[in-house]
Amino acid sequence: MSAELTIVLPIYDGVTHLDFTGPHQVFVRLPNAKVLVASLGGQPVCADGLQFSALANLEEIAVCDVLCVPGGAGCVAALEDERFLKQISRLSQSARYITSVCTGSLILGAAGLLAGKHATSHWAFRDLLPLFGAIRSDERVVRDGYVITAGGVTAGIDFSLTLIAELAGKDLAQSIQLGLEYAPDPPFASGRPEEAPAAIYAALRDKIAAESVERRAHLHAFLEKKSRPRTA
Amino acid sequence: MSAELTIVLPIYDGVTHLDFTGPHQVFVRLPNAKVLVASLGGQPVCADGLQFSALANLEEIAVCDVLCVPGGAGCVAALEDERFLKQISRLSQSARYITSVCTGSLILGAAGLLAGKHATSHWAFRDLLPLFGAIRSDERVVRDGYVITAGGVTAGIDFSLTLIAELAGKDLAQSIQLGLEYAPDPPFASGRPEEAPAAIYAALRDKIAAESVERRAHLHAFLEKKSRPRTA
Repeated sequence: MSAELTIVLPIYDGVTHLDFTGPHQVFVRLPNAKVLVASLGGQPVCADGLQFSALANLEEIAVCDVLCVPGGAGCVAALEDERFLKQISRLSQSARYITSVCTGSLILGAAGLLAGKHATSHWAFRDLLPLFGAIRSDERVVRDGYVITAGGVTAGIDFSLTLIAELAGKDLAQSIQLGLEYAPDPPFASGRPEEAPAAIYAALRDKIAAESVERRAHLHAFLEKKSRPRTA
Repeated sequence: MSAELTIVLPIYDGVTHLDFTGPHQVFVRLPNAKVLVASLGGQPVCADGLQFSALANLEEIAVCDVLCVPGGAGCVAALEDERFLKQISRLSQSARYITSVCTGSLILGAAGLLAGKHATSHWAFRDLLPLFGAIRSDERVVRDGYVITAGGVTAGIDFSLTLIAELAGKDLAQSIQLGLEYAPDPPFASGRPEEAPAAIYAALRDKIAAESVERRAHLHAFLEKKSRPRTA
């Protein structure tokens, strides 16, 4: 691993910041890596009240080794933005690893990168994966060749350590894990639908469903438009 | 929990961003909470290549309910900055909970907030806690009355869920945990000195020790200056 490795995290308004700050904090500890958090035009990005600035310009990044797309409530608006999606498609061509965290996989799907691939997403949106031709998986980190997708938000940390092991070996991954004191000890067993108390799961599922009605409609419209043959 | 709750995360150059982005992503899901990420003068803060802007001005925040100080390589420079430390002391007076993640506890210590308190820090810096009169603990999240300290970096996520349960009940904490899909599944068992492979631990311990010689010297100078009686 002597050559420099370029890792690109494309972000957009409404991204869930922990989707990329988790992996970013892991990736920056990889020697010889250039980790670029990038947006269209290098414009500042807002995420849950945090503003990220001095970003790389997505359109000016020539190539990358790892493309890692985070998710969040803004993911549907992001994939509807042709300028943004074009950059995802373009960068995916040079990437050795095409990856996502949370609903970032919907963006990969929209760019046509999940066809026939096993993939995951945030639990509340995994049902959408087959719309892009992906094979839905409920695992926390799913690898299908050069495509690695992670589940919701915090799964990005597990994913990024897995990727570090792949890129630079298990020893470095374990050293970074130790440096970040990643020996998680959640106070509750409530991180997955299968283990959360049933009433808490049902309430959150319904809340997310209600909040994402419009986004789902947009996604279906996007897919319909895409499948419609172009008239000359 | 009808009244608004103010949570302040004071940051500074060289902060480890995951120390506060983890808790921030949890805290913003607390209804009726105002979560302020703040710096001196509201100036942008750089952290491992990420720039955070549009920050609150630490000096203009009148009071807070929760003060949560993150750590990072910049923590010693931050506690040496009288203007910064003064704001930590001032805000601690109104805070119902005085908290930290990682070496943020050294900043609490420097502000005199850990005297006689059980507290923790990043594993590589816990030995410094007694210098501030604190009782060192190696637990991941340590509570001593209104003071709650968390271990290194990722311990902030466990801590913030614990605090949410305290502030707003266990149901909400579990719902937020589910929303963030926090069912961690690290690819390796290497997150604590006690569980990491011995050689990996020894190498990282020595590397961190070598890198922090100057910071430790500064910390000792700070403590010496503080203990020296003022001449009129």
